[in-house]
Amino acid sequence: MKKISLLGATGSIGTQTLQVIKEHADQFKLVAMSVGHNVELARKIMKQFNPKLVSVQDKAAYESLKLEFPKIKFTYGETGLTEVAVFDEANILVNAVLGSVGLYPTLQAIEAKKTIAIANKETLVTAGHLVMEAAKRNKVALLPVDSEHSAIFQSLQGEKEKNIQRLIITASGGSFRDKEREELKHVTVEEALNHPNWSMGAKITVDSATMMNKGLEVIEAHWLFSLPYEKIDCLMHKESIIHSLVEFHDSSIIAQLGTPDMRVPIQYALSYPDRLPLQSANRLNLAEIGKLHFQQLSFERFRCLQFAYEAGKTGGTMPTVLNAANEVTVAAFLSGKITFLEIETLIEKALMDHTAIENPSLSVIQEVDQETRQFVHSLL
Amino acid sequence: MKKISLLGATGSIGTQTLQVIKEHADQFKLVAMSVGHNVELARKIMKQFNPKLVSVQDKAAYESLKLEFPKIKFTYGETGLTEVAVFDEANILVNAVLGSVGLYPTLQAIEAKKTIAIANKETLVTAGHLVMEAAKRNKVALLPVDSEHSAIFQSLQGEKEKNIQRLIITASGGSFRDKEREELKHVTVEEALNHPNWSMGAKITVDSATMMNKGLEVIEAHWLFSLPYEKIDCLMHKESIIHSLVEFHDSSIIAQLGTPDMRVPIQYALSYPDRLPLQSANRLNLAEIGKLHFQQLSFERFRCLQFAYEAGKTGGTMPTVLNAANEVTVAAFLSGKITFLEIETLIEKALMDHTAIENPSLSVIQEVDQETRQFVHSLL
Repeated sequence: MKKISLLGATGSIGTQTLQVIKEHADQFKLVAMSVGHNVELARKIMKQFNPKLVSVQDKAAYESLKLEFPKIKFTYGETGLTEVAVFDEANILVNAVLGSVGLYPTLQAIEAKKTIAIANKETLVTAGHLVMEAAKRNKVALLPVDSEHSAIFQSLQGEKEKNIQRLIITASGGSFRDKEREELKHVTVEEALNHPNWSMGAKITVDSATMMNKGLEVIEAHWLFSLPYEKIDCLMHKESIIHSLVEFHDSSIIAQLGTPDMRVPIQYALSYPDRLPLQSANRLNLAEIGKLHFQQLSFERFRCLQFAYEAGKTGGTMPTVLNAANEVTVAAFLSGKITFLEIETLIEKALMDHTAIENPSLSVIQEVDQETRQFVHSLL
Repeated sequence: MKKISLLGATGSIGTQTLQVIKEHADQFKLVAMSVGHNVELARKIMKQFNPKLVSVQDKAAYESLKLEFPKIKFTYGETGLTEVAVFDEANILVNAVLGSVGLYPTLQAIEAKKTIAIANKETLVTAGHLVMEAAKRNKVALLPVDSEHSAIFQSLQGEKEKNIQRLIITASGGSFRDKEREELKHVTVEEALNHPNWSMGAKITVDSATMMNKGLEVIEAHWLFSLPYEKIDCLMHKESIIHSLVEFHDSSIIAQLGTPDMRVPIQYALSYPDRLPLQSANRLNLAEIGKLHFQQLSFERFRCLQFAYEAGKTGGTMPTVLNAANEVTVAAFLSGKITFLEIETLIEKALMDHTAIENPSLSVIQEVDQETRQFVHSLL
């Protein structure tokens, strides 16, 4: 029985993780979780899964839930996230929170020797060197939950790192893949949230439309698979059927395919190194699909992708700035404060304004993260 | 240094195997080989690779080559094939001869504990149960060289057999894939030999056009991967880029891709479990290709595929009959004795005429093989 702590239980990845846990109640058990503001959904989850520890975002909810569920231990706020992450009984932490808030709890969970199933890409983007160093030192496995990184991870089973020629991360192209740059000037939030293939949270759906999501994934892949940026390519593949590919130096390519269903990579991370049946998944029927399309991704059309490669190659605190500026601008776009193209413009300003600090400590990263957020806010 | 015996050195797989050996002269050495009637090419190979033992098809060539290359040991005929297969110094036997003549030398090489790189699919089709039993008993690895089986084998690295849902073997469709059945009545040998993707020997190119090649591969896969026929599907994929796929019970699919280049699976078999660089290979560029197509394969359109599934499921000596009838009819078609569609008709007659013998010994198989050949010859 694998015992699971889940950060971000009410989000898109969180609820799908719970579906997987439910489908394999004999193998997985939810022992601790954190939730955000969706207390209603949190109540349902607690009734169904009966976790021992629950962290909520604010103190008011904490006070009322404590009375309602006397058998569950409650906590709240950022401290609460970490308490869930290091919860003694758990073997695995599924980190499915949004944004760089997932960093500190993840580092603490690594020190507590938990296996990490990581859906929170901002953690690796903003402090990949710290996370990887801690994981290595503690001999802790970092299992990817993102469909692309899971595809690469699955494709690498039984293979040797030294034989990798390059990774090819596929990109659906997001909500605006068929639009020219000119047409992006007046797109709405609603249009941005209408992703063609995947049903995901709002932030990641906007990140897909700007292609920043792919940029963050490139940086995440750099850390997860210890490869230089020169060996990480992106490829437009609008059907999201080939989830990513690995090319080896004999020119052979191994890829992982499937219908777009996040439960597959989530379950793979939980069941790893084994696979479990997933009865409820839609099986891929390539004859029915008929065609798969591939296209180069242009840095001119998708400037955020270029920013991410550049920030990644510069390294140090630059990816922290990239990520913080992105989190603030996407939130500003979602709340109607800026236009879609201003996301790019403001991220670029934040990157231009910053001089990278090499090999930053956690406190330097947190400082740069805060400074960047303030800087971008001042431009809104 | 891996020392290689090569059966069928002057054929398509044979010469490409020699290219791989040449590209990695520090890792591979040709120590023994067999050749057919192409003595001219055999001379070139001997000068370049300097093998210790060479078997030729007929005695006349044997007598003259002996005088010409006094330092090389020569042998000839079917005995010669076996001498090459069990050559003491060799670690690996690459079986790249054509047809069921490869069976006996392969069985002997297995008893001599050689690793088998098998490109000769007729060996497994005609006597899969004997080959697999001998391999298991002698703890000998059978490494596939066919691009499809190599793709499956590569996709299975690091995976567990129990988790396999099904294999999906891709088929280019061969020379006549865009023709209706009606249009096949008057196709010529020349048209049949014009394969759209792969440059291969004549027999396998005709087998691709009849789809018997895929049928033989289904039976081969059944034996190589110990899976029932219900778990082996075929899929038309005209670009021959995805060389085959494995679906697992979590609905995840792992596939191997690449440009159509037989040197890749040949080298994989030789370098296994490692991979070596293959500088001369054309790297796959999916963006350039743009689209991959998939389509169901119809049993009505491709009757040989249905024959193969049925013969495979019936088992016993039925696949031996399928293979022998196919070898004779394809040779008859290539020499202009019968039409393209008569290949199917005659194979069907041979199958209808035979009552399968269960669990046949090698001598029973050889007998049924000969009987079938005579029966089909009597119908020509």
